[in-house]
Amino acid sequence: MAPMLSSDWRDRCTGEHPDPFPVHTLRRVDRPTTAIHEDRIQRFDEREHGFNRSARGDYGAFVKAERLRMVNKHPLSGALLTMQGMLGHLVDSGDRVPVDAKAANGPVPVLPPVADRRAPGTEDPDRMARNIKETAYFLRADAVGICELPPYAVYSHGVFTGEPVELQHKHAIAILVDQDWRTASAFNGRDWISNSMSFMSYSTSGFIACLLADYIRRLGYPARAHHARNYQVAVPPILLWAGLGEMSRIGDIVVHPFLGPRFKAAVVTTDLPLAIDKPIDFGLQDFCAKCKKCARECPSGAISDGAKVMHNGYEKWPTDVKRCTSMRVANQKGSGCGTCLKVCPWNKPYTPLHRAVNWTMRNIPLARNFAIWGDDLMGYGKPDPARKWWLDLEDVDGGGFQVPKNVLSDDTFLD
Amino acid sequence: MAPMLSSDWRDRCTGEHPDPFPVHTLRRVDRPTTAIHEDRIQRFDEREHGFNRSARGDYGAFVKAERLRMVNKHPLSGALLTMQGMLGHLVDSGDRVPVDAKAANGPVPVLPPVADRRAPGTEDPDRMARNIKETAYFLRADAVGICELPPYAVYSHGVFTGEPVELQHKHAIAILVDQDWRTASAFNGRDWISNSMSFMSYSTSGFIACLLADYIRRLGYPARAHHARNYQVAVPPILLWAGLGEMSRIGDIVVHPFLGPRFKAAVVTTDLPLAIDKPIDFGLQDFCAKCKKCARECPSGAISDGAKVMHNGYEKWPTDVKRCTSMRVANQKGSGCGTCLKVCPWNKPYTPLHRAVNWTMRNIPLARNFAIWGDDLMGYGKPDPARKWWLDLEDVDGGGFQVPKNVLSDDTFLD
Repeated sequence: MAPMLSSDWRDRCTGEHPDPFPVHTLRRVDRPTTAIHEDRIQRFDEREHGFNRSARGDYGAFVKAERLRMVNKHPLSGALLTMQGMLGHLVDSGDRVPVDAKAANGPVPVLPPVADRRAPGTEDPDRMARNIKETAYFLRADAVGICELPPYAVYSHGVFTGEPVELQHKHAIAILVDQDWRTASAFNGRDWISNSMSFMSYSTSGFIACLLADYIRRLGYPARAHHARNYQVAVPPILLWAGLGEMSRIGDIVVHPFLGPRFKAAVVTTDLPLAIDKPIDFGLQDFCAKCKKCARECPSGAISDGAKVMHNGYEKWPTDVKRCTSMRVANQKGSGCGTCLKVCPWNKPYTPLHRAVNWTMRNIPLARNFAIWGDDLMGYGKPDPARKWWLDLEDVDGGGFQVPKNVLSDDTFLD
Repeated sequence: MAPMLSSDWRDRCTGEHPDPFPVHTLRRVDRPTTAIHEDRIQRFDEREHGFNRSARGDYGAFVKAERLRMVNKHPLSGALLTMQGMLGHLVDSGDRVPVDAKAANGPVPVLPPVADRRAPGTEDPDRMARNIKETAYFLRADAVGICELPPYAVYSHGVFTGEPVELQHKHAIAILVDQDWRTASAFNGRDWISNSMSFMSYSTSGFIACLLADYIRRLGYPARAHHARNYQVAVPPILLWAGLGEMSRIGDIVVHPFLGPRFKAAVVTTDLPLAIDKPIDFGLQDFCAKCKKCARECPSGAISDGAKVMHNGYEKWPTDVKRCTSMRVANQKGSGCGTCLKVCPWNKPYTPLHRAVNWTMRNIPLARNFAIWGDDLMGYGKPDPARKWWLDLEDVDGGGFQVPKNVLSDDTFLD
């Protein structure tokens, strides 16, 4: 059998490998495929994230006002955000659900402390790496990778307190959850389901990370979950070192070889002994240099069609954070924006045809010259109305949901 | 193409149907395939469940003592139980995470009340049934069905308060989550991962149910999530009416045509207008009459190899609840017991071979005479040690985890 057919989406059911994707066939390298100059990196202050800047008014009064209803303006993303907020309180020992809970719901659990005694057999890094990956897949993660926690990936300050962040854990476990191909094939990249796709993956990966961290603490090792409502780490460098993707033209977005950019990630940091993964090279630097479809399609013009730059010690394609954030926060014709995810040629289902194309793009550099042409020709990147399943609903002023004035338009850029 | 190949596990990715399984090919019937005499049913008092009876000592002092550590004696099922307990506090409006939460984790979310205004377009039962199913699948449910809420499925009293249960919702939405084929193929039915399989599916289906109920309340309709740490309903009759399976020889266990008994379920009850599903008939009554493998293999001897009986208005195969519960609670060589799940011939992965066998068993009654013979011949029901991934660990006295004295034995019945 050809290498591209040596594995299958069903590997986890039928094969010897626990991973749902054939990650064992990927080319491993010693360092990420984009330069990282550790000595030049300033740790990131979470308060300077685009969403936090928009909330304090750096992108103007209109964007600041829209930030308040950004996720809650659709009922499904609102529910997901609330759950995500709950999970933000369940990341470490001592976290708990409510003291004022209804007694009818029974006793109130508390996340237990790190066990005094280390469980026997947990000292072997190879054994524990396998156990942690299998456990994460058992908990329904789509992809998992492990690296040493780069000290420069730890935020300098947290957004809620403004206090300096102290996090000394040795390892980071990254957990990816797919944003759902069926929905991705139906949406136009920036209509009323876009935020729900993000938050479904955020809350589901966060749910898995909270469970995994509790499990590790019960084994006798410190562990903390990090997810979209409670990160102490910047995720992209962790994904690179854990072999879960390469930096892409989209900017600070890591693309996974089988999910493309169609995922969100949560992380568990811990001192559990763990064998680490190596970074991967599936040709994305060459691919993104040639393709440029995300830059062509970005409704806010935030994505560059030019060359990579060095920024804070990282080699990356530059993006205009203000334009990207403002589009996502203040989109008047949808909830959020994931147009780059939508149009990226790596955003495909894992079917036999796409497995074959995927193998070709990873292994035959010449084929990448025709990638965007073929992708356009096949009609990818366009919404499929037959699969649209969500309700177009908008809460404008907190008074209840109504049918939005603007639905499924291609002209959504906020100027 | 033959009917058995007309659909695929990948339907959700590639086909016109949102369901991961080809449920549209199943034979629908007007009533469940086992008799239900609504007028004779006494609503069930949750306090009389086997697990609750074991906790108050009805099955002896040893079982009562073991009940306290039953799930927490393994680190993974312990973490899942704690999360499940958290979700038990997030089932309805006003539920919230902690007032005493660390400020560092940001604002404390509260589940919002039912929206004052009903969202436009939510009055159409067909449209909303499709939307709810797609939403549940988007949230990563494996199977979803909808029925009218049978009043007799509502518990008479809750276990935590002893108060009468009042629940008047019109509809029930049932959400199934797979217990993971890979793990099911590896375990022996009653070793140290068994409880984790149950609780992974309980907590994951509960997570989805809590999200779905919040979403429905935002649309302007009452809705309540029901899951293993906070049920107000008995699940089996809901699964029957929602077309998610038939009563099986295992006893109170509903078997799904494509998952077998390898799932746990959560429910959302609501007044949202919803088109209902019809019960299914895939030949299970004839199959279970002939097969009897679960009765042969049950380590506690709780499963009958005899005929069905009428019990409290339900036609069902009888089980010995005391023997079943005592085995699961006080298993000294593992955590819990799912031997019936393990050995049931319907517990298979959804691969081409098994799709073909599945079609045959659903459609060719004569083939069922050879089912248990063929299943035994192929070696199904035995553990596959090459796939074992979990840690055998046991907390005996609350003092920390140790390697259990008893591992992977076939001789685990507690006498």
